[in-house]
Order: sequence, then structure tokens, then C-alpha cells
Amino acid sequence: MTGSSSSVLGATNRTRLTRMPKRGVFDREALYRMLDEGFVCHVAFVVDGQPYAIPTGYARVGDFIYLHGSAASRMLRSLSAGVPVCVTVTLVDGLVLARSAFHHSVNYRSVVILGQARLVTDPEEKTSALRAFTNHIVRDRWDELRPVTPQELAGTSVLVLPIEEASAKVRTGPPVDDEEDLAWPAWAGVVPLALQVGVPLPDSHVPAGVPPPDPSRVARKSRTEDQTSEL
Amino acid sequence: MTGSSSSVLGATNRTRLTRMPKRGVFDREALYRMLDEGFVCHVAFVVDGQPYAIPTGYARVGDFIYLHGSAASRMLRSLSAGVPVCVTVTLVDGLVLARSAFHHSVNYRSVVILGQARLVTDPEEKTSALRAFTNHIVRDRWDELRPVTPQELAGTSVLVLPIEEASAKVRTGPPVDDEEDLAWPAWAGVVPLALQVGVPLPDSHVPAGVPPPDPSRVARKSRTEDQTSEL
Repeated sequence: MTGSSSSVLGATNRTRLTRMPKRGVFDREALYRMLDEGFVCHVAFVVDGQPYAIPTGYARVGDFIYLHGSAASRMLRSLSAGVPVCVTVTLVDGLVLARSAFHHSVNYRSVVILGQARLVTDPEEKTSALRAFTNHIVRDRWDELRPVTPQELAGTSVLVLPIEEASAKVRTGPPVDDEEDLAWPAWAGVVPLALQVGVPLPDSHVPAGVPPPDPSRVARKSRTEDQTSEL
Repeated sequence: MTGSSSSVLGATNRTRLTRMPKRGVFDREALYRMLDEGFVCHVAFVVDGQPYAIPTGYARVGDFIYLHGSAASRMLRSLSAGVPVCVTVTLVDGLVLARSAFHHSVNYRSVVILGQARLVTDPEEKTSALRAFTNHIVRDRWDELRPVTPQELAGTSVLVLPIEEASAKVRTGPPVDDEEDLAWPAWAGVVPLALQVGVPLPDSHVPAGVPPPDPSRVARKSRTEDQTSEL
């Protein structure tokens, strides 16, 4: 948490959950933990009346979310003073198998941020964003790398969005079957899903004996930790 | 593959990849394998000029993609003859660690489908969609469940979108570092990521001895299989 921003995000007409208000999360710290756990976000924007949802890398720095402009080139083309965007990060935690099709569900956590994206032009802010992108993927990775050149900085498009109008939705726990279905002879419960970090594969130029980053630098907080203060 | 649809999706001005054309995939079969592998899609739509990207369940049936309307309630409110939507399915396969921040990347496969969504009102088509949603999560699950009631059918909103204007993007393989960086003393390569299916957790009403669905009914095709005809 940085600066003087409120730790609770007030629900607006656009972020208020009309359908399942009990699943809403407006606590800044809980939202930020979800944002920090994901690897890829989906950016929604409009070109000529057609909405697009495009996956791209991101990183949170304080109360701002930075986006790789590369994947949002269509958006960049129409970007001038700022375009309305939606940034969504979704973490899938499990499949919820009920005794009826109707009550099947998915356990997930998702954050939706609405606002106007701004193109980052200041080289210092851009460098900070690149550092954040890199360290978001692997903790402390930036310091191991060949320093960024001015040409690379110029060739990178970065967008920033303040985290002001935002909300999260969370579904956890077992299926909620109708009382009269509880004796139905089908297995019911949750099949957990989690993004698993595999064994690192060095490229052909890594000298023998150079170890890969420790898995703990890539691993995210466990789901259990994340849930403690959410519900 | 069903019916007479083309096995190659022609690139339109909206789906043509302007930035990295070599990453484009327009082969229907390859696209469908990606769609069938994911669990959650992101639906982009516009309300009052504001784009939204909302995660929701889906299933492919032939050359159509069906969406759970529940998560798209904002869209449903403004839905009459059809609204322009974008459905995106993204599979994250690995983190690409280069020797420079600039060349860091993510290995992923993503499918983007553009078009007009239509609300499904026919009870038979709606039932088929519910069956597809359920069996998309766990193979052959539908037949084990308490049958759907007319009330449940009425209470479920389903959208459908033909898979006509669609494309996929795929990044695979090791980092692509600049020649002069190859001797830089940092580990470089790929850290694989995969959605792992955990041990099923029965709810408190499952009688002792009732086994959970076999993991093979949830597991997706391996990445290796998926890649063979894509690149």
C-alpha cells in the first residue's frame, strides 16, 4: 500500500456487482495480492465499435497497473489523450462439480479495473515499468540482466492505468446443491486447479553449471494464504 | 470439424496480425484444440462506451462457441438483436527468460473470436449448450447428473457466437536474445507453466466409497500434442 489512497475501493455503478454481491471484494490489499499473483491480464478496448480482449503482460507498481503496449497495438493506434480500457486478471482455482448441471461452477478470483489508459513517455517511468514487468515474472530478475538501451526503451510501448475504479470477484468452496439433490448418486466436490511451475529448460547458450532461478522466485503465494483475508 | 465450414479462417482487417504475423494461426483445427483445452474465456463487450473483459465459462459445439450468460449480465441487459463481442481464450505455457529485459516474454496460445453474440432462447439449443458446458469441464459428466429442470433452463442465460472471424496467436520456444548478449552471465531459457489438476476434494455429502471422476476426464491434451500441427 502506498501513499494516501484509500484501502477500500468504493463500488461505482460500473463495478458494483449486481448479480452475486456476496462474491464481491473491494479491499485494496486483497485485490493487489490477486494482481501480483497473475502472469497475464486481458485488456479490453474498443476500435470502430468492436471490442477486443487481448492478453498481455502487466505489473502493478503501487496504485498503478502498467501494461505492455506491444500486445495492444490496435489500442495504441487510437490512443491519444487516453482511451477507456478494462484490465482483467483472472486466477482459476478449481472446478466445482455439483449433482446438477445448473450448479456446476468454477472457483476463481478475478480483478476488473476500469479507467483511461495513458501512454507512458517519460524514460524514467518507462524504465521503472520495464523493471516491474521483469521482476513480476521472476523476483529480482532485473539486476541480473544486460542493462536496457535507449533504443529498446524507445521501441517499447507502455501504458499505465491508475487503480481507482476496480473490484474483484471470488468464488471459493464446495458446490451448493439443492437440498433434495444431496442423495443423488454422483460424486460432487472440487477438483483443484493451479498453475504449476515446471523444470526450467535452459537455452542452448547457457554455459554448463549456471543454475536456473530458484523456483521460489517464480512461485506465487499459495491460494490458502490469499484467501485468509478475503472472505 | 463439422459441416461445410472452411478449415482455414481467412484473416480480416480486424484479425490480421499486424505486429508479429509469424505468430498467427488461422487453421480451424488448431484453433479448436486451443478452445477445447481452456476452462475460462474472457468476453469483451461495450456498455455506454466502456469496454469490459469478463471471465466466464464456455464450450465449443462444432463451429459455434457458447457462453454462460450469467457472467455477462451487463451485456445481456443491452442485448437485443445482437451486440459485438470478442471472446478470447488464453493458455499460458511458460515464462521466457532472456538476457535482456527487452526480450523477456511469455509462451502462450490465445484465440480471439469476433462477432455478434445472440441470446439462445430455444430450450433444445439451450439444453445442448448446458450439456456442452458441463462436459467441457469433465468429460461425460452430463450423464451422471440429476436432469435439468425447465425452471433451471429458464434461469440460465446462454449466448452463442459463430466461429467465423477468428485467429490465434502462439509463442513457443526459447528466448531470442541479441547475438551480442549471448555471453551475458545470466541463465536464460523457459520456465514451463501448466494448469495442474489437483486431488479432488469431495463435499460433505458424498457417501464413503464413491470415487471422484478419473483425472483423465478433466485433464487436457498435452501441450506437445497441441503444438505438432501449429507451427
